[in-house]
Amino acid sequence: MKNAARKNILKIKPYVPGKPIEEVKRDLGLKEVCKLASNENPFSPSPKVLKAMQKALKGLNRYPDGSCYYLRKEIAKNLKVKETQLIFGNGSDEVIFQVVRAFVNEGEEIVIAHPTFLMYGIVGQIAGAKIKTIPLKNFRYDLVAMKKAVSKKTKVIFIANPDNPMGTYVTKKELDVFLKGLRKDILVFLDEAYYEFAPKKDYPNSFSLLKKYKNIIVTRTFSKMYGLAGLRIGYGVSSEEVIDILNRVREPFNINSVAQAAAVAALKDQAYYQKAIRLCEKEKQYLYEEFKKFGLSFVKSATNFVVIDVKKDSQKVFQKLLRKGIIVRNMNAWGLKNYIRVTVGKPQENRKFIRSLKEIL
Amino acid sequence: MKNAARKNILKIKPYVPGKPIEEVKRDLGLKEVCKLASNENPFSPSPKVLKAMQKALKGLNRYPDGSCYYLRKEIAKNLKVKETQLIFGNGSDEVIFQVVRAFVNEGEEIVIAHPTFLMYGIVGQIAGAKIKTIPLKNFRYDLVAMKKAVSKKTKVIFIANPDNPMGTYVTKKELDVFLKGLRKDILVFLDEAYYEFAPKKDYPNSFSLLKKYKNIIVTRTFSKMYGLAGLRIGYGVSSEEVIDILNRVREPFNINSVAQAAAVAALKDQAYYQKAIRLCEKEKQYLYEEFKKFGLSFVKSATNFVVIDVKKDSQKVFQKLLRKGIIVRNMNAWGLKNYIRVTVGKPQENRKFIRSLKEIL
Repeated sequence: MKNAARKNILKIKPYVPGKPIEEVKRDLGLKEVCKLASNENPFSPSPKVLKAMQKALKGLNRYPDGSCYYLRKEIAKNLKVKETQLIFGNGSDEVIFQVVRAFVNEGEEIVIAHPTFLMYGIVGQIAGAKIKTIPLKNFRYDLVAMKKAVSKKTKVIFIANPDNPMGTYVTKKELDVFLKGLRKDILVFLDEAYYEFAPKKDYPNSFSLLKKYKNIIVTRTFSKMYGLAGLRIGYGVSSEEVIDILNRVREPFNINSVAQAAAVAALKDQAYYQKAIRLCEKEKQYLYEEFKKFGLSFVKSATNFVVIDVKKDSQKVFQKLLRKGIIVRNMNAWGLKNYIRVTVGKPQENRKFIRSLKEIL
Repeated sequence: MKNAARKNILKIKPYVPGKPIEEVKRDLGLKEVCKLASNENPFSPSPKVLKAMQKALKGLNRYPDGSCYYLRKEIAKNLKVKETQLIFGNGSDEVIFQVVRAFVNEGEEIVIAHPTFLMYGIVGQIAGAKIKTIPLKNFRYDLVAMKKAVSKKTKVIFIANPDNPMGTYVTKKELDVFLKGLRKDILVFLDEAYYEFAPKKDYPNSFSLLKKYKNIIVTRTFSKMYGLAGLRIGYGVSSEEVIDILNRVREPFNINSVAQAAAVAALKDQAYYQKAIRLCEKEKQYLYEEFKKFGLSFVKSATNFVVIDVKKDSQKVFQKLLRKGIIVRNMNAWGLKNYIRVTVGKPQENRKFIRSLKEIL
């Protein structure tokens, strides 16, 4: 059957995720493991969200509402967009698949940064697209170079804002300049998975841009700040025209019922999440201070994770931390061999990480 | 942006699902609505499954296990296949997407029956495939004609067994003849979503066929008998070679954590589900008897639903039933204008349906 597969499919290296806690416990025979690898919210869903999920369990013999009726209403109201400007995904990464499936023909181009979120490149490869990768400049997106890379064949440009894995962000001004004069039939994909952690001052207001540009899609997720990664739910906001196109390539029941109920409840429980953000910010400052004391350079982050130059083979540091029951991300997969990425965890987890890192280095 | 979409995407008519209960209640102002439209199990998940799901809720801030470690082990053990012969989908309909994404280039062909499960054609259209449709013969798959339809360009043949919407099935003997001499690089997709309801006597043993043919993929789901449609989980079983290819195009976290926990618990609770199957069989016989008394012809079904010739415009019958709080499926979408499809529900639901149908006709 190998010969029957589409061209280049066998060359694709599947995405390698952060190690699950259970797996590390099993493999290393550890009892206590903390995961600082996948930029998750370290706390369980809020009590109100738990209650909403409980309620949904008994009805799971029924298919989910394919239209996400209640969630759609809630988000449209909050963001002041039309309900027909929304599309949902089994995680916002599914929206990446939908966009490429709807807009990119084999041999056409997508433009991405390097390094950035790995799925853009993988999804592009699956579609048989040509991937143009533009290196970061001082750990930040180089939008000037990305715009220059546009050719006649360019269909989609992916901008993670803030970026994963670097944690830096594109400013309002930079994005304005980038969009001005860009061909109107190129879809600009603004992946705002970490939006809630970004500083509000010079960060772009994507929804006001949407009023001007029909060729922007903004994605948000419930997997990060909202702490619902295990349920898989994210969404895209764009012009009605783009959403209508994406709806045609969507799996009809892609959002499970528990996720729909949880997301509605989460949106209504902002106080809980604001507290989580403030704690995350405080803990990030703690990590910065410790890195400084220790003479380690790091990239100042607009997210809930930090990239650190450990000045040693990160694979080794990663393994040593693992044996101490701490899962971080070594940045080999992005070609950064002396860097690790650590998610801001609970206070005690961050302290354990700092202690262990000091012992290792 | 319409001009930027891939060719033919705008011609795709999205899948129209059975109406959700909530929607009918809202639209018609009804308090009691029973849904006999989507071939769901009419009962809530088993108490053991509910408990397993409860337990999973607190950990939902973490990403799901992308490998479905425990569920994979359980299914491999039950089916006596290797763990590397399994792939999971956000519902087994996602496996349809994976297969087409991995194997079908634009302009290549897929062979399907007509009518059959609508998603095969839709997913094929999305990929830009040519869809060859072979009419049913006496409401059954015509495998001889489907084999004849194979050309050099054929990549995948879809066989729903038992079939949805007709409820009929392909026998062991018919499938053996079909596979014999079929080109080895054509993937034969055996969709066994309703497998648990099928008679065991002359139904094919797909897993023994898998030992002989590397170009078969068998899909099963937790959405029907197992009563977990709301969670979205299904899987495919094939040769390691095919599974390796599919894994390269899979979304890395496509199966949510609640679904994984629920599916493991469901597999271990067979007694509960055997009881549900027996009740379904008994109730199906009740429906048959009533149809006979009433002089209505129907298609004998190997599933949990029945197709009935109402000898009138099915759209009108559908609407009248709806106003009485009963959702069935009118078969216009499949081009069968005098037919409705009804799912076997709870005893009281089936009786209400029969009563209402008699009033209407």
